[in-house]
Amino acid sequence: MDFALNPELAALEKRVREFVADRIIPMESDPRRTAHGPDEGLRADLVGLAREAGLLNPQVSPEFGGMGLSHLGKAVVLEASGYSMLGPIAMNCAAPDEGNMHLLEVVASDAQKARWLRPMTEGRTRSCFCMTEPHPGAGSDPALLKTTAVKRGDRFVVTGRKWLITGADGAAFAIIMARTLVDGEDLGATMFLCDLPAKGFRISESIDSMDSSFAGGHAVVELEGLEIPETDVLGEIGQGFRYAQVRLVPARLTHCMRWLGAAQRAHDIATRYAKEREAFGQKLIGHEGVGFMLADNEIDLHLTRLGVRHCAWLLDQGARGSAESSMIKVHASEACFRVADRAVQILGGMGVTRKTEVERIFRDIRAFRIYDGPSEVHRWSIARRLGKPGA
Amino acid sequence: MDFALNPELAALEKRVREFVADRIIPMESDPRRTAHGPDEGLRADLVGLAREAGLLNPQVSPEFGGMGLSHLGKAVVLEASGYSMLGPIAMNCAAPDEGNMHLLEVVASDAQKARWLRPMTEGRTRSCFCMTEPHPGAGSDPALLKTTAVKRGDRFVVTGRKWLITGADGAAFAIIMARTLVDGEDLGATMFLCDLPAKGFRISESIDSMDSSFAGGHAVVELEGLEIPETDVLGEIGQGFRYAQVRLVPARLTHCMRWLGAAQRAHDIATRYAKEREAFGQKLIGHEGVGFMLADNEIDLHLTRLGVRHCAWLLDQGARGSAESSMIKVHASEACFRVADRAVQILGGMGVTRKTEVERIFRDIRAFRIYDGPSEVHRWSIARRLGKPGA
Amino acid sequence: MDFALNPELAALEKRVREFVADRIIPMESDPRRTAHGPDEGLRADLVGLAREAGLLNPQVSPEFGGMGLSHLGKAVVLEASGYSMLGPIAMNCAAPDEGNMHLLEVVASDAQKARWLRPMTEGRTRSCFCMTEPHPGAGSDPALLKTTAVKRGDRFVVTGRKWLITGADGAAFAIIMARTLVDGEDLGATMFLCDLPAKGFRISESIDSMDSSFAGGHAVVELEGLEIPETDVLGEIGQGFRYAQVRLVPARLTHCMRWLGAAQRAHDIATRYAKEREAFGQKLIGHEGVGFMLADNEIDLHLTRLGVRHCAWLLDQGARGSAESSMIKVHASEACFRVADRAVQILGGMGVTRKTEVERIFRDIRAFRIYDGPSEVHRWSIARRLGKPGA
Amino acid sequence: MDFALNPELAALEKRVREFVADRIIPMESDPRRTAHGPDEGLRADLVGLAREAGLLNPQVSPEFGGMGLSHLGKAVVLEASGYSMLGPIAMNCAAPDEGNMHLLEVVASDAQKARWLRPMTEGRTRSCFCMTEPHPGAGSDPALLKTTAVKRGDRFVVTGRKWLITGADGAAFAIIMARTLVDGEDLGATMFLCDLPAKGFRISESIDSMDSSFAGGHAVVELEGLEIPETDVLGEIGQGFRYAQVRLVPARLTHCMRWLGAAQRAHDIATRYAKEREAFGQKLIGHEGVGFMLADNEIDLHLTRLGVRHCAWLLDQGARGSAESSMIKVHASEACFRVADRAVQILGGMGVTRKTEVERIFRDIRAFRIYDGPSEVHRWSIARRLGKPGA
Repeated sequence: MDFALNPELAALEKRVREFVADRIIPMESDPRRTAHGPDEGLRADLVGLAREAGLLNPQVSPEFGGMGLSHLGKAVVLEASGYSMLGPIAMNCAAPDEGNMHLLEVVASDAQKARWLRPMTEGRTRSCFCMTEPHPGAGSDPALLKTTAVKRGDRFVVTGRKWLITGADGAAFAIIMARTLVDGEDLGATMFLCDLPAKGFRISESIDSMDSSFAGGHAVVELEGLEIPETDVLGEIGQGFRYAQVRLVPARLTHCMRWLGAAQRAHDIATRYAKEREAFGQKLIGHEGVGFMLADNEIDLHLTRLGVRHCAWLLDQGARGSAESSMIKVHASEACFRVADRAVQILGGMGVTRKTEVERIFRDIRAFRIYDGPSEVHRWSIARRLGKPGA
Repeated sequence: MDFALNPELAALEKRVREFVADRIIPMESDPRRTAHGPDEGLRADLVGLAREAGLLNPQVSPEFGGMGLSHLGKAVVLEASGYSMLGPIAMNCAAPDEGNMHLLEVVASDAQKARWLRPMTEGRTRSCFCMTEPHPGAGSDPALLKTTAVKRGDRFVVTGRKWLITGADGAAFAIIMARTLVDGEDLGATMFLCDLPAKGFRISESIDSMDSSFAGGHAVVELEGLEIPETDVLGEIGQGFRYAQVRLVPARLTHCMRWLGAAQRAHDIATRYAKEREAFGQKLIGHEGVGFMLADNEIDLHLTRLGVRHCAWLLDQGARGSAESSMIKVHASEACFRVADRAVQILGGMGVTRKTEVERIFRDIRAFRIYDGPSEVHRWSIARRLGKPGA
Repeated sequence: MDFALNPELAALEKRVREFVADRIIPMESDPRRTAHGPDEGLRADLVGLAREAGLLNPQVSPEFGGMGLSHLGKAVVLEASGYSMLGPIAMNCAAPDEGNMHLLEVVASDAQKARWLRPMTEGRTRSCFCMTEPHPGAGSDPALLKTTAVKRGDRFVVTGRKWLITGADGAAFAIIMARTLVDGEDLGATMFLCDLPAKGFRISESIDSMDSSFAGGHAVVELEGLEIPETDVLGEIGQGFRYAQVRLVPARLTHCMRWLGAAQRAHDIATRYAKEREAFGQKLIGHEGVGFMLADNEIDLHLTRLGVRHCAWLLDQGARGSAESSMIKVHASEACFRVADRAVQILGGMGVTRKTEVERIFRDIRAFRIYDGPSEVHRWSIARRLGKPGA
Repeated sequence: MDFALNPELAALEKRVREFVADRIIPMESDPRRTAHGPDEGLRADLVGLAREAGLLNPQVSPEFGGMGLSHLGKAVVLEASGYSMLGPIAMNCAAPDEGNMHLLEVVASDAQKARWLRPMTEGRTRSCFCMTEPHPGAGSDPALLKTTAVKRGDRFVVTGRKWLITGADGAAFAIIMARTLVDGEDLGATMFLCDLPAKGFRISESIDSMDSSFAGGHAVVELEGLEIPETDVLGEIGQGFRYAQVRLVPARLTHCMRWLGAAQRAHDIATRYAKEREAFGQKLIGHEGVGFMLADNEIDLHLTRLGVRHCAWLLDQGARGSAESSMIKVHASEACFRVADRAVQILGGMGVTRKTEVERIFRDIRAFRIYDGPSEVHRWSIARRLGKPGA
């Protein structure tokens, strides 16, 4: 075992940290941060900064202009990018694009890559991933998928309703999951690629939500007679759930990486405040009640970091990492939330205002305990694995 | 001991519940709810509804048009009003007005009551309470009070900065706490009454904050050469901290009452959802993972209710209730937050959107763990009491 | 609502507290406290002290020499008795006898009462309740009951294995639950009374366990051809589960009462220690880390007390109290355990030794989270109730 | 970074696991396990088994017959040994001997090593470490050290009282910490070596305690006129606290290693039980309430393992590891306790009996949250470090 980062990676981490500190954090007071995330102008400016710094696309292969980092490399770099919630957007490694790029790299045809992946990796476009459906459709339980794609000649006609579709507003294209019906036969779930805007793809609502850091916010999408040519099927028909798995574990882990960076930020802000602010005769940090919270933060952050890096390393070894990524998803989301919650508490009245990033981090991390599988679903999947004969 | 409500109070509770369900909850989708609370138009409409229903001012004495409820009566009625976060605003028993009315009833002169209390109890005006100051002034530790009121002839000239002043924007008057200097001598803290707008009282910022249910939001107030005639001193000079105590314990307790109602609401929404929504082969509530959370909610709500009513009863017996109100402030804020947090989690993706009131309740209750004394300050005050010789 | 104790009850509480402080606590260093509870000699001495003080049988009707207390009265008196773990044994209101006496008072015939109840209420005998079975028999799920009672002429022949039978060793009689077979037909569960020792009733093991305060400890009982005349059926054939319910809710609640007293004791010991012991420059209680734990103890104890008394009052009004007793069983066992755990922690090295009662209280309370329904089973029953249509 | 164990270490881990499973676990039912730990006969038998298997002294240098493992090597092997609470005793790597051997290797003279270390590494003797004192002496705060060693000619006369001295009963020698007075001058704390039994070293009490797995239990030791020749000073006069540091961090970490193994054992027992035992219509593990607890155990164990190994690796790099070892001490003790607590709960009635090792592990791990620094002291030390300027 060796817990040391190799020097190249350590140097890259340092560069990203400095970039975020020097170029991105000053942008946090930009008024173009809206309740539905940074607007397109701000996003373009942020991407420009990262491009200038040579820090775009840590997770993309060099062929497509990325750094070609291993999972472990991403663990280090994406955490550093997440130290500002604008960092991953700048570096083009935010959700859902980051997962979509990974999916396209693995599954798409060359023509599809040229058409959809290339402009994304150049930071010119955004995308969305249309899987989640409102009740009684596919939520935590994907088996409930209701959207259908019915074959008509050389095209599919897609009908259904999606919601909580992050980034749909302003996306250049969508990846859409639908139950595929060909000649009356259900061939299972398929993924489709679709340029936007498109006839039959309508954003009926921009959802007000607790979090506010995803570019484009979250939308309700109505799919009504949306026509998609069969050439725009992503990979093969009926393989949608399999591809979802391809996207799932790494995307889950990159969430952990970014949020770890954000939680570290909240902790650092609270620590600085506790070292400056005085009450009841001494600095806040001199009060055990505050000091213990900061100590628990340190512990939570330290162990989350170890767990995230371990799981990334596992994936680098070719493991599927389903169990480990479930464990770290639960731990990271719960621990990072605790960190953010303690940071709010330490800041006191300041903590519930937008005068520091902590308030925003707190709200955004709350959602992280739910998306990509609520803690409860992951606990259950860990338990089921344990329950198998021979486990 | 007798845990039964008397029939009049039970009947009143029922009326309030029905009023909130029938008249107030439908108003929750009103677009005039802003990030800084309901606007004045909405507030006026809400107050109108309560006036029509004969449900204004549960906490005010009959002399001033209120119901003259005991603390226990308030515990029952304010909880019921809090079932919608708009309920207390409608019934004119929301913070900070509710506490200010109580303070004025106890301390103000008849002339002051006629001038400031009467219009408030008629629902025509709002007020604010200017105590909290930014670092390095008075926060959790009021001894750090920095604002000064210097005697000049028959008036005081007030200088300082206040922040997190709830309801300042739109208030008809302010109660201002300042360190009083007369002929160079520090006479301690005094409370002043001041009509708004006033020269020398400037709202320099409307603070963006996690919560969004207080009318008027939270402001930063600059006090620069604000002149207040000596007739507008509230009570006596140098008695500010003593009057703050008069306001403190009951106001702390009414917060618990209202938030208990809001937490109950979040729980009821989550329960209803869990009984309808299906995943992994059965209704959510059929999953132990969800059912246990709901059971813990029931326990938290039940015990909070007992604790709040017990403390209210104590005050009715003439007790100061400092220890008990600290205990119940900690318990209620932490327990109600847990309830709201579990409700968010049960709702899943829905829980982080504004599609139900739960998202708002969650954000607002987070702040409740901080204002009126963070849990840590109350724990400390409980411990100090225990530590006294003979305790 | 009225939270005041009536003066008679308050006076009785005071008497019990003084009795426990003056007469029982000094007995705690008696070497006759074994790993399987106080031995018979110690028990007799303790009962003698309570008899002398006129404090036997708070829960028994005056007809049988008891105080005839209401449930609320018991809540007050049993808590006070539990301040020493020897107190309930002295006052003849410890488990399982207390529940068995209640059951006999409600269900037994006059002849049975004379034969079995009377000597118990005189403090001369102990009893046991034989329901729980080892895997795969009846544990948390009573429906798994395996022990059978087969009718042979005018007697029943009982066969089965029971375990965790508290107080079996030294008991004068047993109440035995068995599935009843008459002429090959299963008539459901029946309760039988059986003098001990008896042929066919064999204690095969005295179980080593974490707790050590129940007189007689916990035994494994082998029932092999045990013959019971049909006159010794308790109540009616086939009504066993119904009678179990008669015993269940009140017995569950008296556990909460006694353990609340014990937790209060642990807290008081820790508080006293924290006020005397110095470390890092001040008394322990002056450290927020310790003070916050003591404050949380105060809150846990206060709310548990309110919850227990409320539930007792409910039973006094004739309510079944199933939901409330489940809620308070979960809360009381979890909260009292937290209190004991914090007390251990505050005592430091001392806390894990038997130099104070805290170590014993901690171990004994751990078991309380499991018996009379583990917290999980109660949570589930609360959730199921919520899940019913119309709930 | 590389999370793979090297093949030699992985093979050694496997050997230790098999040894513990095949040879040590069967010894757990040996009646020579007393409330004060395994007796000397049992200890000798256990050591014999490890000697036979070539598995003695993983932590000792080859020069003294050990495996000469790195800290990381120890992390792997001591965890595996701890899978039975008898394992570390068998392999001669239990507390306090393991820490004492380390201390002697680093600090003792060759003559001292020959006299005291050699027989220990041969498994023939045990030792004890006499530092902790009862109130008002040195506990969590070592600065309160009260025991004195007064120079008289060529010897020191030691006077004081020590308590919670693990293994004193039956130890062949003691390491004693005392404040050193030479010619009336206080030269600071010194460590002394002392063969046992010795005149002036009296065990006045064998302390009854919650835990029961340390050989020799815990004693109160009276030091009354104990004479120690100056040649038996360990290292240099006045360097006692410095040497305590030498012992401290590694010993703290080996505790984490062993307890991690024990917690894993408790979890495995609970998992097996949950897969066999049925209630309410299915296997326990099929209930989410149980499955979630097992999932949380998996997470706690996984992250503790990563944290322990990371800290061990840090020490191998030459770091002092004070902060990291404090973090992992808090996390490991709290997490392992949670694991044991959940295992008890899952086992239900069985969990509080000595029918599985879980009951014992639960009791023993409770103490681990206190010794080698209570969680609170470590949190404080982490906070203090954070609070330093520049940190």
